[in-house]
Amino acid sequence: MAVGKNVLPELQRVPGIKIGTANAGIKQTGRDDIAVVELCAGASCAAVFTQNAFCAAPVLLARKNLQKNPRWLLINSGNANAGTGKQGIQDARSSCAALAEMTGTQPDSVLPFSTGVIGEPLPVEKITTALPKALEKLSDNAWEQAARAIMTTDTFAKGSSRAVSIAGRTVTITGIAKGAGMIQPNMATMLAFLGCDAKIARPLLQQCLEQAVGQSFNRITVDGDTSTNDACVLIASGRSTAPEITGECGLREFAGAVLEVCQDLAEAIIRDGEGATKFIRIIVKQAASEREALQVAKTIAHSPLVKTAFFASDPNWGRILAAVGRAGITGLDIDRIVMYLGDVCIVRNGGRADDYQEADGQRVMDREEISVTVDLGRGGMSGQVLTCDFSYDYVRINAEYRT
Amino acid sequence: MAVGKNVLPELQRVPGIKIGTANAGIKQTGRDDIAVVELCAGASCAAVFTQNAFCAAPVLLARKNLQKNPRWLLINSGNANAGTGKQGIQDARSSCAALAEMTGTQPDSVLPFSTGVIGEPLPVEKITTALPKALEKLSDNAWEQAARAIMTTDTFAKGSSRAVSIAGRTVTITGIAKGAGMIQPNMATMLAFLGCDAKIARPLLQQCLEQAVGQSFNRITVDGDTSTNDACVLIASGRSTAPEITGECGLREFAGAVLEVCQDLAEAIIRDGEGATKFIRIIVKQAASEREALQVAKTIAHSPLVKTAFFASDPNWGRILAAVGRAGITGLDIDRIVMYLGDVCIVRNGGRADDYQEADGQRVMDREEISVTVDLGRGGMSGQVLTCDFSYDYVRINAEYRT
Repeated sequence: MAVGKNVLPELQRVPGIKIGTANAGIKQTGRDDIAVVELCAGASCAAVFTQNAFCAAPVLLARKNLQKNPRWLLINSGNANAGTGKQGIQDARSSCAALAEMTGTQPDSVLPFSTGVIGEPLPVEKITTALPKALEKLSDNAWEQAARAIMTTDTFAKGSSRAVSIAGRTVTITGIAKGAGMIQPNMATMLAFLGCDAKIARPLLQQCLEQAVGQSFNRITVDGDTSTNDACVLIASGRSTAPEITGECGLREFAGAVLEVCQDLAEAIIRDGEGATKFIRIIVKQAASEREALQVAKTIAHSPLVKTAFFASDPNWGRILAAVGRAGITGLDIDRIVMYLGDVCIVRNGGRADDYQEADGQRVMDREEISVTVDLGRGGMSGQVLTCDFSYDYVRINAEYRT
Repeated sequence: MAVGKNVLPELQRVPGIKIGTANAGIKQTGRDDIAVVELCAGASCAAVFTQNAFCAAPVLLARKNLQKNPRWLLINSGNANAGTGKQGIQDARSSCAALAEMTGTQPDSVLPFSTGVIGEPLPVEKITTALPKALEKLSDNAWEQAARAIMTTDTFAKGSSRAVSIAGRTVTITGIAKGAGMIQPNMATMLAFLGCDAKIARPLLQQCLEQAVGQSFNRITVDGDTSTNDACVLIASGRSTAPEITGECGLREFAGAVLEVCQDLAEAIIRDGEGATKFIRIIVKQAASEREALQVAKTIAHSPLVKTAFFASDPNWGRILAAVGRAGITGLDIDRIVMYLGDVCIVRNGGRADDYQEADGQRVMDREEISVTVDLGRGGMSGQVLTCDFSYDYVRINAEYRT
């Protein structure tokens, strides 16, 4: 049910970062559902987390341990360890402590991440029993296996790599992500893990990550529901022979490559949105502020009526217009609004464009990938959001998820 | 596909208000799709309209003519005359002018209302051709016919009557409404028309209507989409033998009865929400303000994940909890939150209640009518929102609406 390209590209090894996966039996599929990531000594680690007030136990613990000296990530799918109260915190701690003991590190040097069903106790014993298997398989060439191990309702594994030249030496960035539903990331997506071998100080690494997330994961939405477990991590091992990245050396190139990897992953999440049959790019231009542009774009992207019209390939632009009208923009002058479906102008001066033919709109709507452009006629700022349609399968997947 | 009771009660005549309906051929069903409402001389008329910036041409004209001396309402279904630009205004004017000419009144004494597809030109000629038929049938006993004539994707006609005693004399209030989809009324619902025979000054009538709408139509949501055409009208003919309603005489009784009729109609709209299989009451208590309570209630009510879980009768309370967490309440202490499904406590101290059994949650979810109660533990205010679930049929209805 994914839209367009969904082939996992070759994921480049990142010197200094090793990954091992195993099947702990949390997911009922028999597939790997835990992954451990080892950071070499001296690696920097940056992360952003969900803004949901009900953030999950692993988010609370990972946020705290991020301030220490992270050496391991411990990731599981199949159970979110969210809405699990004090027991959830205890369970996350126990899992981290088990991994620390097996690897001779401190418990607070392990960052836990969980994704899956909310409200069920974390099966700690299953995880700790499977950890040795994952540790045995530690390898610098297991990004793809990790991309598969973190999937829940995802239909394909998501990853992206970039190489960037800094002072003539190569820095490699590889990232993986999982998405599918409960996707309106707020500061971070469901789960995304990026590694690179750059030498870069932690504050600068955090800054690069936050900027990239702001322009990628924070601009996508499947259903407007922000997860309790969203997290995005960027590790820099420092093992590249390139010089240290600073404000004066390579920052623009490095930040650009991080952004590209994040955008690839964010796009893949939308292509694999639950039940998605269309990949939709909503562009709002001529806004008074970027915030206003995004507010209008998200109102369109969240409208069930707009999303079902896309599912039906129905050029029902009146629903888009109604969404613009209820987006809460003060003093909106509807007579200045121009709207395009693909390259077809459908609305001008607050009404149907004189030269608009339904057949032209239909031609655009029949495509799998569709762009909507709204010119607000209020200023020079713009913003873009990626989303997908609302299909029978979205209802089926979410009605059947626990059964 | 409606939930629970959907039998239209007997609608009481309202002295001073006459209604006629006809089939103008706008809807393809062959059923009546226009209604005219005659207000007797001296009647007062109050109204509230959509807050959607793209409000439809008839809303613009009705809002303006409301300030004059309204003698007629002209209502059509099947076409919203929204997103139709300057031509839309001209079309609304022409229809009103035709009715005014046939009845010997001023064009600005006619208030137009339209509901149906957005973005199509209003078929003015069909309307004017059918007007004489509607006028021929004018009667004070045609509220039910009008309730049917304003339906679009509604599956049953919605109406309610109340009689209230003022100084020993009876005042009768009758109302009708249509709903179904694009329902998150903001100041008013899709279309609702109430008539009564009270003697009451227009400002006081407007105040009664706004209060009632705030506690009824503004507390329901099907899909979070606010229509371009929402309007709610309350006519007072003054023909009752009861004394004039004032701050000193009968206001509390009258306002209470208006609210009851509005609540009946609002509830009927949710029972007939597009594709609805569940009627859901979301109650948020112990909030710091009513606004905060409603904000949390609406976030739950709009969550596609919550709505699909209800469709599946799945006590997936983690999704409700995740919605509370992303509702944007600053300083929310999740440890104080208590949540009930029906009378079953499911969440305490930010996690699953110790004594919660899934079978108990399942028993509540299997019902057609379900209440969710969230105690925020922040103060003494509360708020309630009515909503319905998200089913395959919501997608089908909205994917097929124009085809």
